[in-house]
Amino acid sequence: MSPPELVLASASATRARLLDAAGLKPTIEPAQLDEAAFKAAFKADGRNAGDCALALAEAKAKRVAARMPGALVLGADQLLVCDGQWFDKPADRDAARTQLLALRGKRHVLPTAAALVKNGAAIWHALEQPALTMRPFSDAFLDDYLATAGDAALASVGAYRLEGSGIQLMAEVAGDHFAILGLPLLPLLEFLRDSGVLKA
Amino acid sequence: MSPPELVLASASATRARLLDAAGLKPTIEPAQLDEAAFKAAFKADGRNAGDCALALAEAKAKRVAARMPGALVLGADQLLVCDGQWFDKPADRDAARTQLLALRGKRHVLPTAAALVKNGAAIWHALEQPALTMRPFSDAFLDDYLATAGDAALASVGAYRLEGSGIQLMAEVAGDHFAILGLPLLPLLEFLRDSGVLKA
Repeated sequence: MSPPELVLASASATRARLLDAAGLKPTIEPAQLDEAAFKAAFKADGRNAGDCALALAEAKAKRVAARMPGALVLGADQLLVCDGQWFDKPADRDAARTQLLALRGKRHVLPTAAALVKNGAAIWHALEQPALTMRPFSDAFLDDYLATAGDAALASVGAYRLEGSGIQLMAEVAGDHFAILGLPLLPLLEFLRDSGVLKA
Repeated sequence: MSPPELVLASASATRARLLDAAGLKPTIEPAQLDEAAFKAAFKADGRNAGDCALALAEAKAKRVAARMPGALVLGADQLLVCDGQWFDKPADRDAARTQLLALRGKRHVLPTAAALVKNGAAIWHALEQPALTMRPFSDAFLDDYLATAGDAALASVGAYRLEGSGIQLMAEVAGDHFAILGLPLLPLLEFLRDSGVLKA
């Protein structure tokens, strides 16, 4: 049996949806990786968040590629950095509230990386760094937001979903929309065309 | 009976969806307006596309506001300009093909306007001008694109839907994503907060 054309080494429903909408039909094979340990090691070494996102994207792709010889495997990662602090996906609604209060009224950056691996070799990567500024929303607004956003507030590293009511948290949004959602889609499509996976 | 809080004077399903996702529930009351004549008059006067989009957005809102006293009415309009030429929504698939061939390999701008009218008075407006560059796609790609995009290719002024396979037409996308979809959402939300329609 021939390997699937494109394998997505991510459990992110948003990334799968973005690829699907663009006309790709990736096979989903989430990578199991201790991301917290990975990030802590990078942080301890004083390395920047962009490098960490790239390394994580590649590590996830390599993990899955190891069990799928011949497959083109896409790994991806997104971090959130504000005032030098790295943020993680909030574990529950209280954590989401704490995180949104820390980001309130400030600009944060979303280092967003993707990497392609085939037969153990990293053959492509991309990194984008969109920046968003949260407005100084009121505590009452935050209460309403968390009540209506529900679990969607927990599904992203920023505790917001820009395609939903999360847009109401923002004062400014700068950078590629697809990268903000978790995937540098335009450079990925360009590479897939250049390498013959997609029609040019 | 009190008037509805926000009325959308547009038949655009995308604009309704954007407002809905942001947490607003507009009443939909499309304006009937001879847009072609409106645009031709602006063009003949040598006025720019941004002014025309703003005037159209306001005219649509005024048309609907006239029959809904007390309502806050949102009008919107989007034009497409490439090499000084103004484009319209393609009427059929042949027109979509002709238009995409005219845009291929070039940068185009989407003057995107919104206006709010209440009791006959224009109380707010916004204009954004995102720019997109189409890549030099092949004729074979275009055939496939038109076959799979179907009527979605006819629903927008650019004959593409960026949230779908239309992204494969693009080399570069610059500007606010919501404006590209047809509505300057962030400035609208800011005004609605400032005027007490939305919680700040």
